[in-house]
Amino acid sequence: MADFPKFVEFREEGPREGFQIEKTIYPIEQRAELIDLLSETGLKRIMVGSFVSPKYVPQMADTAELFTRIKRKPGVDYSTMWLNDKGFLNALAAKNAHINPMLLYYTSDAFCRRNNNCTMAEMAARQKDWVALYKQHGYGVETAGITTAFGCNFEGDIPLSRVLDVVRGLMQLCEESGIPVPTLSIADTMGWANPEAVKRMIGGLRELVPEARIAMHFHDTRGLGIANLYAALEMGVDLFDSAIGGLGGCPFGGFGNTRAAGNISTEDSVFMCHEMGIETGLDLNKLIVAAAKAEEIIGSPLMSRVLHSGGLDRFRN
Amino acid sequence: MADFPKFVEFREEGPREGFQIEKTIYPIEQRAELIDLLSETGLKRIMVGSFVSPKYVPQMADTAELFTRIKRKPGVDYSTMWLNDKGFLNALAAKNAHINPMLLYYTSDAFCRRNNNCTMAEMAARQKDWVALYKQHGYGVETAGITTAFGCNFEGDIPLSRVLDVVRGLMQLCEESGIPVPTLSIADTMGWANPEAVKRMIGGLRELVPEARIAMHFHDTRGLGIANLYAALEMGVDLFDSAIGGLGGCPFGGFGNTRAAGNISTEDSVFMCHEMGIETGLDLNKLIVAAAKAEEIIGSPLMSRVLHSGGLDRFRN
Repeated sequence: MADFPKFVEFREEGPREGFQIEKTIYPIEQRAELIDLLSETGLKRIMVGSFVSPKYVPQMADTAELFTRIKRKPGVDYSTMWLNDKGFLNALAAKNAHINPMLLYYTSDAFCRRNNNCTMAEMAARQKDWVALYKQHGYGVETAGITTAFGCNFEGDIPLSRVLDVVRGLMQLCEESGIPVPTLSIADTMGWANPEAVKRMIGGLRELVPEARIAMHFHDTRGLGIANLYAALEMGVDLFDSAIGGLGGCPFGGFGNTRAAGNISTEDSVFMCHEMGIETGLDLNKLIVAAAKAEEIIGSPLMSRVLHSGGLDRFRN
Repeated sequence: MADFPKFVEFREEGPREGFQIEKTIYPIEQRAELIDLLSETGLKRIMVGSFVSPKYVPQMADTAELFTRIKRKPGVDYSTMWLNDKGFLNALAAKNAHINPMLLYYTSDAFCRRNNNCTMAEMAARQKDWVALYKQHGYGVETAGITTAFGCNFEGDIPLSRVLDVVRGLMQLCEESGIPVPTLSIADTMGWANPEAVKRMIGGLRELVPEARIAMHFHDTRGLGIANLYAALEMGVDLFDSAIGGLGGCPFGGFGNTRAAGNISTEDSVFMCHEMGIETGLDLNKLIVAAAKAEEIIGSPLMSRVLHSGGLDRFRN
């Protein structure tokens, strides 16, 4: 029944999304060291940081500098993101940054106002200018991110119909601009998805725009991340964002040094794929080494399981 | 495609399996208090402790006493387990203990030797005596547990064919004894399962013994617990063991107060079911209250996500 892909690609979000949420700004040397360890795992794309407002996200203020500190490994794209024109121009100017021209859509006005200080409709309209800006610099569009696609803490459940409307707007923009529909990166930004909702979402998107590649960006906020990944694999999705160690959760109270779950953990995700015979091109043991470094940097336990239990190879002959 | 049950029952393992693995023996008053909180959640069966060797498992030595400390709620079975005749007789003698007559099968000689000091074949042969003992005391057999059904740290992968052979032995015993095949409780004791292996296992069991109810006992050792649960739900399984807070992991080093994952977390599992429209009869918020108590007793962070992030109801109007 299931339509599993033979090969799945994981794109590493840890160095950006993981450190972005921390109150502490960790030393640039340590973040560069983590990225260098990640470069050895087989990952083809590592998100190094982002070009966003240093006022609101001081953790990312040294992203341009960080790009110069890493040991670039041939075949690995060291990428970044931005939320406006200025950020894109800064990314272009950064030494060694791989440019992944992306569009950004919201499905929640409340979240869009917080992140981009405009309504989701205004943000959608603005994407036309982004396409033009990218074109002006010789780029097409690789990815369109759609945030809080399952639900939003400020607005509640997001109906699938709203996500499909957003994609219809994107399709119209692509037609008008004469560009192919980019990869749709569907983000469960706040951890609202469940496996059945994931299947409905992917089914709906496939029906609407069968030619588009679909990527999923899951958070494990409420513990369903790996089940959501499995559901997406059953639907044939072969591109996922993940974070080493499950970096990216908010620290929370109680025991002081514990934290809510962040992105789905790269090593747990890769472990599941390998156990089911799905290739990833990644070395699980090297991922565990990188995850241990991430935990050392953060200085408190990460939520990854395989980081702490290890894989199964050592028990097999 | 999926054959979801409309209602799923969770049987609570936390007070037994959760505390059994801890080096510390936590005060009996606190364990009774946790059980009393669990009694308010809608759970119909709570495993209070076990009647096993106090020499090897001193944490469970006061199980008989614990049974007298809890506030029994009508409609809730307060159950227990044993590994030999003597344990069963102690359970029978214990005040207020619900007797769940069970058989116990191994799929790994090495694990059987450690747990029961005999081979898996010897243990299987011994089950005839257990059936007779239960009959002698007026009981049938409710459950047959099959341990390390997916893999064993001492033996490696356990082939499905071996599990099916074990079940064939059980079927023969049932025929000879004139009793129906009991519920098959398939335990991934050491966290080797993956969702596809779960589906193959359930498919194989259904073909061999379609009349038997299947229960799954998952551990989240390598992060796949909730995905395995989802896969089993897709196959129509409607009975699961779980542990409040995800209790039951081994403490591990590194940060001193962190721990490997234990049983699948009751509250994370229930959250997923509810989000997919599957009823459980359980109150998620009350489960979170009980999980917080479990974390307080243990004194270090539990791996449950929903305990720390909460459910979604508060964001919905």
